[in-house]
Amino acid sequence: MTGTKVKEDYVDVLIVGAGPAGLMLANWMSRTGVKTRIVDKRGTKVFSGQADGLQCRTLEILDSFDFGHRAWRESNHMIEICLWNPDKDGQIHRSHRIPDTIPGLSRFQQVVLHQGRIERFFLDSIRQHSDIDIERGMLPISFHFEEAKASDFDAYPITVTLQSLTEQEATPEQSGRSVVNDGLFRSNLSPDDTADLLDAARLRARAGQTEIIKAKLMVGCDGAHSWVRKELGFQLEGDSTDYIWGVLDIIPVTDFPDIRMRCAIHSAHNGSIMVIPRENKLVRLYIQLQSEVEASGGKVDRSWITPEVILRQAQKILAPYKLTYTYCDWWTAYQIGQRVGDRFSLMERVFLAGDAVHTHSPKAGQGMNVSMQDTYNLGWKIASVVKGRCAPSILKTYESERRTIAKQLIDFDYRFSRLFSGRPAKDIMDEEGISIEEFKDAFEKGNMFASGVAVDYGPNLIVAKEAPSLEQVDDTTVANLVETSPVASKQELAAEIKVGMRIPSHKVLNQADARPWHLQELLRSDGRWRIIIFPGDLGIPENLARLTNLCEKLDNKNSFLRRFTPQDLPVDSVIEVLTVHAASRESVELLDLPQILHPFTDTAGHDYWKVFVDDQSYHEGHGNAYKRYGICSNRGANVIIRPDQYVSWVGESDDYDSMDRFFSAFMKVQ
Amino acid sequence: MTGTKVKEDYVDVLIVGAGPAGLMLANWMSRTGVKTRIVDKRGTKVFSGQADGLQCRTLEILDSFDFGHRAWRESNHMIEICLWNPDKDGQIHRSHRIPDTIPGLSRFQQVVLHQGRIERFFLDSIRQHSDIDIERGMLPISFHFEEAKASDFDAYPITVTLQSLTEQEATPEQSGRSVVNDGLFRSNLSPDDTADLLDAARLRARAGQTEIIKAKLMVGCDGAHSWVRKELGFQLEGDSTDYIWGVLDIIPVTDFPDIRMRCAIHSAHNGSIMVIPRENKLVRLYIQLQSEVEASGGKVDRSWITPEVILRQAQKILAPYKLTYTYCDWWTAYQIGQRVGDRFSLMERVFLAGDAVHTHSPKAGQGMNVSMQDTYNLGWKIASVVKGRCAPSILKTYESERRTIAKQLIDFDYRFSRLFSGRPAKDIMDEEGISIEEFKDAFEKGNMFASGVAVDYGPNLIVAKEAPSLEQVDDTTVANLVETSPVASKQELAAEIKVGMRIPSHKVLNQADARPWHLQELLRSDGRWRIIIFPGDLGIPENLARLTNLCEKLDNKNSFLRRFTPQDLPVDSVIEVLTVHAASRESVELLDLPQILHPFTDTAGHDYWKVFVDDQSYHEGHGNAYKRYGICSNRGANVIIRPDQYVSWVGESDDYDSMDRFFSAFMKVQ
Repeated sequence: MTGTKVKEDYVDVLIVGAGPAGLMLANWMSRTGVKTRIVDKRGTKVFSGQADGLQCRTLEILDSFDFGHRAWRESNHMIEICLWNPDKDGQIHRSHRIPDTIPGLSRFQQVVLHQGRIERFFLDSIRQHSDIDIERGMLPISFHFEEAKASDFDAYPITVTLQSLTEQEATPEQSGRSVVNDGLFRSNLSPDDTADLLDAARLRARAGQTEIIKAKLMVGCDGAHSWVRKELGFQLEGDSTDYIWGVLDIIPVTDFPDIRMRCAIHSAHNGSIMVIPRENKLVRLYIQLQSEVEASGGKVDRSWITPEVILRQAQKILAPYKLTYTYCDWWTAYQIGQRVGDRFSLMERVFLAGDAVHTHSPKAGQGMNVSMQDTYNLGWKIASVVKGRCAPSILKTYESERRTIAKQLIDFDYRFSRLFSGRPAKDIMDEEGISIEEFKDAFEKGNMFASGVAVDYGPNLIVAKEAPSLEQVDDTTVANLVETSPVASKQELAAEIKVGMRIPSHKVLNQADARPWHLQELLRSDGRWRIIIFPGDLGIPENLARLTNLCEKLDNKNSFLRRFTPQDLPVDSVIEVLTVHAASRESVELLDLPQILHPFTDTAGHDYWKVFVDDQSYHEGHGNAYKRYGICSNRGANVIIRPDQYVSWVGESDDYDSMDRFFSAFMKVQ
Repeated sequence: MTGTKVKEDYVDVLIVGAGPAGLMLANWMSRTGVKTRIVDKRGTKVFSGQADGLQCRTLEILDSFDFGHRAWRESNHMIEICLWNPDKDGQIHRSHRIPDTIPGLSRFQQVVLHQGRIERFFLDSIRQHSDIDIERGMLPISFHFEEAKASDFDAYPITVTLQSLTEQEATPEQSGRSVVNDGLFRSNLSPDDTADLLDAARLRARAGQTEIIKAKLMVGCDGAHSWVRKELGFQLEGDSTDYIWGVLDIIPVTDFPDIRMRCAIHSAHNGSIMVIPRENKLVRLYIQLQSEVEASGGKVDRSWITPEVILRQAQKILAPYKLTYTYCDWWTAYQIGQRVGDRFSLMERVFLAGDAVHTHSPKAGQGMNVSMQDTYNLGWKIASVVKGRCAPSILKTYESERRTIAKQLIDFDYRFSRLFSGRPAKDIMDEEGISIEEFKDAFEKGNMFASGVAVDYGPNLIVAKEAPSLEQVDDTTVANLVETSPVASKQELAAEIKVGMRIPSHKVLNQADARPWHLQELLRSDGRWRIIIFPGDLGIPENLARLTNLCEKLDNKNSFLRRFTPQDLPVDSVIEVLTVHAASRESVELLDLPQILHPFTDTAGHDYWKVFVDDQSYHEGHGNAYKRYGICSNRGANVIIRPDQYVSWVGESDDYDSMDRFFSAFMKVQ
């Protein structure tokens, strides 16, 4: 083969790793039209086991890509957590019931569905919206970075050589006793995964070939043993010891009453179990195998761990209740610490995301969620820089925003794990034991964090916050490098639309057809920024005057809407203007409102899908959006929402100038 | 080719016609494992235009097959109807707003989505659950029926010869000016329809071949010009004249304020328009072209009808508002009467359904719905007879139930059409004109009928009603041939679960995991009968005693549950027992209840998905099911639900004997 020219390809983005983080990023790219390749050294997607909890925030995100309903329908919904503890005689009993998802937090609740299905939804979505192909059995073998080109976004500073693997090389090794139950490996294959199996043939055809990729940007979503991270020379920092836990995914045969609830069961002397009820009659059990391992830094011997050993331990903890099974879908055991990456990016050209920059224990159900949310944060930023809409400076916010979250995750997991693995207190004098009240408090507080809704990004170029609270400041110097927005928010105008957090969702009605929508349903993840005008009650002349005044400025040919939108694209292509007013629906005629609120074209007529009203619906009640958002209908407010539904700015309903300055700080004139 | 043996196939059911009625039937067959062939002379499914309204009852039915959400998500939801009428000066103005679907009627509201998508959902579902293939380009050319075999359900009394067509023969002729807008014919092809286009190749390969089908049963779902009906010699009876209406499916460019509402617009002198807002920015307009046609029985000349003519008439009616378009998806014109078949069945071996037995005008959005509901009624009956579970006598209820509905539909459409096409009254003295109040009343009453929820089947073998009300008696002698149930209902025990109607849906919580479900979601269309036990408040000792007593009888090895279920199948395979109790969720432990309510197997443990509670949920409020069903929690009730969600019987919560007699009247001991 000497003399054959090696194939070379130029791409905007190279994604290494096609797990949840990589697929979320590829999905963003598919929606924004960015030239992308995504490679994974494994031959197929995940078929069973692995991470499976979906936070309500993750469901909101999947829904913004139009496939949240698939997860919602197929998954098991976890509604209640039952806490079981020893009574005076040392026998376990149900001591508390608490809701799994705090009521009112989101329109979704936490659910469980195995990772393979989530990946399937992403694959379907990517195929539907683009020609991006998930290239399996492709191993990156060399990496070169030209620093001199890092500030030029027309240049390709990254060179990666890819090697095609054989089918055998690309198949994860079934390491006999400790990974998957081989005979059952294909048992929960869904029909639409057939295509994955056919990929094996493609692998054979191209095995041994190499290819050179020249990329503008690269993202390592390649897991805890990240090749990209090693090439960059970045480190994971933190504690690498933990307790040992076994995991069984089984159809349980048991008389334990709460096997379909999420349970935290603390036995008096035999350790703990967490019960996670799953789809298709399955239940996942996390079972504590020994109370603690020496924090010596060395790995313990795991060869004694078998499903039988794990089951026997579970039976001890659950006694006097019985537990057996005939069907086991998957099992594993783990001993893992909490670690976080020291850096998330090389010069905003190479990024790390997901397990490549944070590892922790699986019990809190956070792993897949935080990983997907890393690239949900990063994807739209990359797209807007690659397409020349925004300045590269916004890419710095990825590390400052997500490293803070990763550290919070690690801290949460550290506390949660210790609490969970600790021995229950015998009585109030037992200071080493963990009291049930302490545990319940921690569980309830943990639920807020675990929902994903509590994420609160600190002030930066695209989060117009006045002053950071302490916990939002990263302890690295990165945060200080990020520019801050030139404008200030007036948070009090919409007290519950918190700058830095995702906008909560309440129902509003379409002015033109009276259909109720959850506000978040209008904020599709398509790469667009949004201004939501809350003009207040339009029956108040001052409010109507303010709205008219604002719209005149927005409609001006030099407005920021026009300046930052390419001339050949519709006016709402970069920044979409939505309106939610507070007059009664019947008192307002859509076409009487300024035309910029319902843009008109000769082919499609008026746009009937941009003006909404906070009013009573016929079939779904009253959303009371103004009240719940803390907006006064006499005064109104304006809100700037990022393409990822996080709130950038809150201000006066006619404050055109602040919005102009906000966008001008990072958007490029087209 | 002489001497070549013609291919012969033996099937349980031959379905002729693959429109909505035929596909609904094939879908039932796919869920119940009945050997089925379905043929259609056309080469492809519908791609645009045609019927498109979906009643809320139809959505409930699609949801029971697990794909209602696809229609719900893709469709346009119609929320409000606006009535427009001339004012004193003859100018149209909005006179009334009324909700399109009566609030509280169903968990769905009426929506609009074009027929091709509905057919796609059926095709996907049939493929997912069976090997049934939709055979397109197959024309039945001869029919023979052996009466002597009609009473033997092991015999095949039906012989049909099928002829494969060429692609050209199988393509519906585009008759130039009056059917579809040819250039746009494929414009709204969805990606997943590609397979249909590939079918053309298969047609070529087998063109000209014939095949003989021997069938136990045959169903003609082959439309207004039904070949099956003609072979049977059955007649359509009724009025065959009407007014002439034009139909435009366009993206409107207009300043008419209510173009995204369903509107009934009566002009002073230029006739009427009905506005049906659709998916993908489309709007369907039904436009009255001339006030009335002589009821001479002859067809009028339609050659003068073009999209331009229809648009000009619409512009006149809408003046002073403007209306134009640049995109037209489809257009047509029609003049059709109201007709209903004299017979629906030949000896309960050959059936007619859908347009083959009832035709009417499309404006009320009923056609596709009533057609699908015909075969939704028939499908499970056929399956249970073919599989030997039920006596063939239940097949008689198809004609008695559905012919009554067809006649109601025809009457409704007759009144509705006349009202809609009539001239608005000038004032109260104008007796020939139609007053706006009269129209509004009719519209509101019509909405109840149009929802599909008002269907109320009369007493028969499987509807244990005491005495028929007048309108439920068919005017043919058929009703008298249908046996009545040997038991009586006590309707007063569950006043709002009306015998003969579909059970309304309210939310209940799963006892085992606290998840809220709409009761109807538990009543999947899988061919099973269901008993819903409402034992009342289980904190009342008498209620618990009654439940225990009932369950002992149900669990007996000679109980009707066991007698009518094949011994090799799970106990819930033919009749499933569900429970909804009224104690608080926390006061009841599932496993304390009799085991027949949560059947146990060695491989899957307890069944956690059969016992529910009427209690407060954490995230979705309180369903108040007992209150809304009119059931007293001190006394309870039992309900028998047919496989199509219609109510067969209501009785005392421990009345085992009535249920035994009810099922024994038509079920076969296995």
